[in-house]
Amino acid sequence: MADASTAVVLLSGGLDSATTLATAVDDGFACYALSVDYGQRHRFELGAAKAVARSLGACDHLVAEIDLGIFGGSALTADLDVPKDRSPDRMTEGIPVTYVPARNTIFLSLALGYAEVLGAADIFIGVNAVDYSGYPDCRPRFIEAFEAMANLATRMGVEGRRITIHAPLIELTKGRIIRRGLELGVDFALTFSCYDPDAGGRPCGRCDSCLLRAEGFREADIADPALRAD
Amino acid sequence: MADASTAVVLLSGGLDSATTLATAVDDGFACYALSVDYGQRHRFELGAAKAVARSLGACDHLVAEIDLGIFGGSALTADLDVPKDRSPDRMTEGIPVTYVPARNTIFLSLALGYAEVLGAADIFIGVNAVDYSGYPDCRPRFIEAFEAMANLATRMGVEGRRITIHAPLIELTKGRIIRRGLELGVDFALTFSCYDPDAGGRPCGRCDSCLLRAEGFREADIADPALRAD
Repeated sequence: MADASTAVVLLSGGLDSATTLATAVDDGFACYALSVDYGQRHRFELGAAKAVARSLGACDHLVAEIDLGIFGGSALTADLDVPKDRSPDRMTEGIPVTYVPARNTIFLSLALGYAEVLGAADIFIGVNAVDYSGYPDCRPRFIEAFEAMANLATRMGVEGRRITIHAPLIELTKGRIIRRGLELGVDFALTFSCYDPDAGGRPCGRCDSCLLRAEGFREADIADPALRAD
Repeated sequence: MADASTAVVLLSGGLDSATTLATAVDDGFACYALSVDYGQRHRFELGAAKAVARSLGACDHLVAEIDLGIFGGSALTADLDVPKDRSPDRMTEGIPVTYVPARNTIFLSLALGYAEVLGAADIFIGVNAVDYSGYPDCRPRFIEAFEAMANLATRMGVEGRRITIHAPLIELTKGRIIRRGLELGVDFALTFSCYDPDAGGRPCGRCDSCLLRAEGFREADIADPALRAD
């Protein structure tokens, strides 16, 4: 059973969750990383998550498998086209086809189960409400409501330990996330952000996620190390 | 896309969730049943869930697979002994080893994802706070907190549709649940409640779940049809 400075960190393999893990490590938590293999078509991110967890010194890294594709309804799990070449204005118009129903709720629930087994009262998630691409479950109000629920759902809550959901990036722009990650030693060359399953493990450069990432590196005024010729 | 009278019903294959499905059908909902194959050692309940869904006229029945055993921590998923022959007083002393960390949170999160894909604003779960065997995630305050969170988590919530988590059995004794189920046409011979993985698909009669079920049938003053000689 871990002590009070143990945290579960949701880790997708993208740059936001890598910076989140680095933040939790920097805050002094012993970090247990959790990735979810949810039938996403862009599975290269799971390999990236493994490399990121190792490079940042996570105590362990689990991959929970659940096929959200059985429900259908998202371009990230079903056979729908991933939108390309959208301007940032268009990305925040409504909820995009890449939205996976209840994804962050499901991920945080799994993290809560893992945290309860570890005896960890702290959970980190790299959601971001600034460049959030229109997902309802990236808003601060959602995180607060999940935390309130988590404290009623669990043995820890019943026994009086306060569970905290940390979303350290929630108010940062992508550029500031990248700068913070660099300060904390994140190797962004290990991260993978592309939504396109047909890009063969190389970023397509045209989906919302690639475009937001590119905009972030422009804002931070550095080159994306994942795009270097190799 | 389904209309407003569509519901997702969590269905374990036990008598509580069978009565819950019968209640949702009786309320006029077109019901989509969802079971979770979570690596439980007592998997006979999944076959029971299928039979119950069919007998009560569910529109569809999905089984989501997720291995909660990767986290360990419960006699229902890990190689720990299932407690036997405990008195009802003992069952409510603290949280038992059969508690699966964050189980109802995870199940409701999956139901929320399915509901969002269906366009269903109603979710039913057969939790019970009376004979609840000491689980924190069976209490009314937990259900209310989950509902509040769900309305912030989803596209439906953002678009102004109110999501409701129904827990129609939450204040009923096991005997009253059985009476209600019988009134609504539940065939309890199809249901399966035993926690013991070694009972070979026959109820062991000695785990908490078997003992609560037996007490319920005594209270309802009828014989358990699942125990008839066959």
